[in-house]
Amino acid sequence: MSRVSVDMSMSLDGFVAGPNTTAAHPLGEGGELLHRWLFADPQHPRDRQVAIEQRAAVGAVVLGRRTFDVGAPIWADVPYPVPCFVLTHRPEDELVMASGSFTFVTTGVDDAIRVARAAAGNRTVQVMGAETVQQVVAAGLLDEVQVNLVPVLLGRGVRMFDRLVTDHVELERTRVVEGGSVTHLRFRVVTK
Amino acid sequence: MSRVSVDMSMSLDGFVAGPNTTAAHPLGEGGELLHRWLFADPQHPRDRQVAIEQRAAVGAVVLGRRTFDVGAPIWADVPYPVPCFVLTHRPEDELVMASGSFTFVTTGVDDAIRVARAAAGNRTVQVMGAETVQQVVAAGLLDEVQVNLVPVLLGRGVRMFDRLVTDHVELERTRVVEGGSVTHLRFRVVTK
Repeated sequence: MSRVSVDMSMSLDGFVAGPNTTAAHPLGEGGELLHRWLFADPQHPRDRQVAIEQRAAVGAVVLGRRTFDVGAPIWADVPYPVPCFVLTHRPEDELVMASGSFTFVTTGVDDAIRVARAAAGNRTVQVMGAETVQQVVAAGLLDEVQVNLVPVLLGRGVRMFDRLVTDHVELERTRVVEGGSVTHLRFRVVTK
Repeated sequence: MSRVSVDMSMSLDGFVAGPNTTAAHPLGEGGELLHRWLFADPQHPRDRQVAIEQRAAVGAVVLGRRTFDVGAPIWADVPYPVPCFVLTHRPEDELVMASGSFTFVTTGVDDAIRVARAAAGNRTVQVMGAETVQQVVAAGLLDEVQVNLVPVLLGRGVRMFDRLVTDHVELERTRVVEGGSVTHLRFRVVTK
């Protein structure tokens, strides 16, 4: 069965975006520092390999409404060329884009993950958006965490794991790749 | 000249202690999960090597008053067998312990680091306590960050870098050691 995964570029102090995220600055102030490794020219070969691998592994996406609202105008397409499921309270018709479609799920996180798993086949379900990730963790549905650990202290911003309502979650490190500046860490979720 | 360093065992979500730290539970609720790697029996050889190396590197300590108040009864000695400087507003006489001494510095963080550097010789000045570390970062005095990254999401607790008042701080990864479960990462502070 497909795994449910989150993939993030995170500062050493735990931020995945800077403060004051807006449509114009979706990564917030200073948030672009977290993605320099993706846009370095030339990109370090190991960073390039990880980015390609991680992208190829994605079979479906579950994203929050806010991530959709902020991201859609920037992507002008789906974020990955696969079926994408938007977790929302407002029903909307399916939105067909160039490389995939957005389907709006109003029946909660369990349903969103269930339909995404079915769509992903053997590939992973990628969860996007801090609030949605936190709901997926709370529901015990997260299988894997991939962190591109960026050597910077941002000081302020949006954290991926800020409001866990569960008890602690045990992880097991399954891979370490030393990129050019970032460190790519992969963890399996052991206890949920 | 000696480097000023911080060494911490941190959860993937950035906590260095659990919530509700007290003298009876100095690591807070669940905080003991962060130090399992130190007390594992048998300890993984690479974890053992890093712990020994990091301990041997310390030539002086700067710690906050709260860390002193909570730690002293537990250590029943200095935390490292070297000169220790307590940053405080309340003057107190030097306190001689079995393996070193506590000197109380009331003239601020710059002075505390200056006297600790002089005492440390070629070894590092270890800074202990989240508030003190944040003051040292804000003063541009931190040279090195050592993180023992623990594969757990604690969800709640005390963060090491929670109230940085500076702009972002650029780091450079200088070492990665894969321990038994934790990942030991070392960073040089590039911009301060």
